[in-house]
Amino acid sequence: MLASLKGVSQVILIENAWTGFIIVIALATVHVKLGVIALLSAIIGTLVGYLGGADKSAVHQGLFGFNAVLTGLGLSVFLTANLATILGAAALGTLCTAAFMHLFKRTNIPVLTFPYTVVTWLFLLASYHLNALRLDPGLIPQDLAHWHMNTAGEIDLASGLLNGIDQVYFQTGFLSGILILLGIFWASWRLGLLAVMGTAIAWPTAYLMGAEITNLNLGIFGYNAVLTMMAVSSVFHTRERPALLVGLLAAVSTVPVTAGLNTWFQAYGMPTLTLPFVIVTWIFLGARQVLPKL
Amino acid sequence: MLASLKGVSQVILIENAWTGFIIVIALATVHVKLGVIALLSAIIGTLVGYLGGADKSAVHQGLFGFNAVLTGLGLSVFLTANLATILGAAALGTLCTAAFMHLFKRTNIPVLTFPYTVVTWLFLLASYHLNALRLDPGLIPQDLAHWHMNTAGEIDLASGLLNGIDQVYFQTGFLSGILILLGIFWASWRLGLLAVMGTAIAWPTAYLMGAEITNLNLGIFGYNAVLTMMAVSSVFHTRERPALLVGLLAAVSTVPVTAGLNTWFQAYGMPTLTLPFVIVTWIFLGARQVLPKL
Amino acid sequence: MLASLKGVSQVILIENAWTGFIIVIALATVHVKLGVIALLSAIIGTLVGYLGGADKSAVHQGLFGFNAVLTGLGLSVFLTANLATILGAAALGTLCTAAFMHLFKRTNIPVLTFPYTVVTWLFLLASYHLNALRLDPGLIPQDLAHWHMNTAGEIDLASGLLNGIDQVYFQTGFLSGILILLGIFWASWRLGLLAVMGTAIAWPTAYLMGAEITNLNLGIFGYNAVLTMMAVSSVFHTRERPALLVGLLAAVSTVPVTAGLNTWFQAYGMPTLTLPFVIVTWIFLGARQVLPKL
Repeated sequence: MLASLKGVSQVILIENAWTGFIIVIALATVHVKLGVIALLSAIIGTLVGYLGGADKSAVHQGLFGFNAVLTGLGLSVFLTANLATILGAAALGTLCTAAFMHLFKRTNIPVLTFPYTVVTWLFLLASYHLNALRLDPGLIPQDLAHWHMNTAGEIDLASGLLNGIDQVYFQTGFLSGILILLGIFWASWRLGLLAVMGTAIAWPTAYLMGAEITNLNLGIFGYNAVLTMMAVSSVFHTRERPALLVGLLAAVSTVPVTAGLNTWFQAYGMPTLTLPFVIVTWIFLGARQVLPKL
Repeated sequence: MLASLKGVSQVILIENAWTGFIIVIALATVHVKLGVIALLSAIIGTLVGYLGGADKSAVHQGLFGFNAVLTGLGLSVFLTANLATILGAAALGTLCTAAFMHLFKRTNIPVLTFPYTVVTWLFLLASYHLNALRLDPGLIPQDLAHWHMNTAGEIDLASGLLNGIDQVYFQTGFLSGILILLGIFWASWRLGLLAVMGTAIAWPTAYLMGAEITNLNLGIFGYNAVLTMMAVSSVFHTRERPALLVGLLAAVSTVPVTAGLNTWFQAYGMPTLTLPFVIVTWIFLGARQVLPKL
Repeated sequence: MLASLKGVSQVILIENAWTGFIIVIALATVHVKLGVIALLSAIIGTLVGYLGGADKSAVHQGLFGFNAVLTGLGLSVFLTANLATILGAAALGTLCTAAFMHLFKRTNIPVLTFPYTVVTWLFLLASYHLNALRLDPGLIPQDLAHWHMNTAGEIDLASGLLNGIDQVYFQTGFLSGILILLGIFWASWRLGLLAVMGTAIAWPTAYLMGAEITNLNLGIFGYNAVLTMMAVSSVFHTRERPALLVGLLAAVSTVPVTAGLNTWFQAYGMPTLTLPFVIVTWIFLGARQVLPKL
């Protein structure tokens, strides 16, 4: 159970059962179902790791839980499907995590949330051929040839910044955002500050590059920057002092990467999920192995 | 020559020249050309391995043949092109197999049929820019935004199950299906049973998830499950007893994965080929390295 | 500075500062801006390598420069963006190169120009969501379902062959093509001959396979063949004598691969860049590790 709650907190790169608990509550404030799904998915992931005979310490750190949590949440948010399908997908997401752990073993690079993105896209796309899966009608494939940016709208800075953190768990509500931020600060004030810096640097970067206001307000450019900032400057940094400058550059890089991937995926009506975070963080962590001063 | 026939049988994860011979006959019953292409492609692949100076035992096991066979068959089925192009593609498929063998050397994970899918898609897509390649007019790119499932049709269970095996070699005929199944049983009754279990579990899974009847009847959800069942529970399982339960779960997983990939590829009018088998089998075999009880 | 000029020449697989200088001049003859961007990008890449603490000899060979140069040029050619964005992308391209160097360390396979293609596509696609990036209006997404080859046009063999070399640096002018070729011959008459052979084999291959005349004249099928010919037969060949036959086969293979990738990318209106070269060269170099006689 502790491992499962840690699985919930590992989504945001934190190993802390209390943080996981706070986040489950945060999700439940939006919709009780989401809190339950997050917890059940984390339990499924942890069970797969445990029953599969994985290294115990990895299971206890919640490393088999976070991709399951995100897969479960992703399917619940974007799909109407029965619980068995959702938890089955969460289990598959866990196996996929294990497979990538094996593949990345020698690289000194973490798997991050890539397995969850792969499994989630496959299930969302499967809805076009399986009647039992009903895709959120908002996910409409866009014709790129006739796409025009809609830059209208009124800026809501506070929402944009908070949603940048909230969106890590697919949310955009005020209360859930505050609770998630609280959960991060509970685990470590340093990581909390880094999360705030992530959303605080992404917003003006996206604004200056001419992002659509609706995307700014929804925090679309924020959550990947938040995760990247935390990962690059601290969580996967071996030295004591956080690599602030490099982390900020990485967070800034997520903005064009997010925009580019959004274009690619919108042709399928698919959400980009955390792929920008995964790609930019892999680039910076991989580069650090060759450029040790980074 | 024996190595080439084994190359034909390795498509279905079997090293047995007689099985290869039976399958060549099975293909020839559909169209003599297909049997000839399969054999010629296997010979090309084996020759590339032999002349290239590959490890002799790998060549003799037919490991340089099966991706060549599938590439040759895939191009013959979906493309009108001259023999030199088809055999050239088969040779490129073999080189691609060798490259992936090198890349995967340390991972303890088999290359499977991924090289063939890559080379086949490239040649099929190339038909849009090279007049000498004529794409099967049935492969029409589909606009996802206006896609609607067509669930009409009458279920034909027997065809659906047999086609699930037949489709491994792109076929849907009764005689070829029976012969291919016979070839598998000839090599090993255990693998034969696993193949039957694969198609037998995929069909109801796809049905319960609301798959289109036409796809069910064509065995679209079957062949990847068959290959996955054989690979995960027995062929790449180190223990004596087959891992039945895990194999069945893997076979079930191929259903949503197949549906998801079909959606992705239909935007290009491309067939998914054996990619669902490759992805799910990689996930399960990779996970097994981290979860040894799987 | 020498390392930066070598970075410019490494684009075409050559380590020679004079060649780099000649190519900067060649680009400047087309547009002064292009020469400046190429040089600045090379300097950025070299600086990232140097300040990041990379292996000094790799920095001096220009290995941190060439992906930066191509990223800078690619963005300048296909995008209207301010200098900071272009050089930022060049820096990100360098980090991406470093990350792939780490990933490929044990494989004995070179990174080539893959990092540049990834970063360039992301920035080009990002233009759909970021107003500060303006995509070249010629890059229109094409609907594959209604695509028809336009085979009309008059063949211009001389232009087609020269552009096949010129296009490595995105150019199609006579003077720049001659200068670039001169730069290659300056470094090594052997590599010069191989470059000529690359474009000379790709053109008739593409012609015989029924390529569109406009593509033939623009050298679309040439530049990937040129790079592949040089890479496979000589630059990454350990023996003294160039592997001419294998190099020619690899160069021929780039033609269908280029056509296939063009189809895939045109749905997004994206250029294929040097991806065909990367894929075919990886296949042949990887295969050579398993097939030593290749």
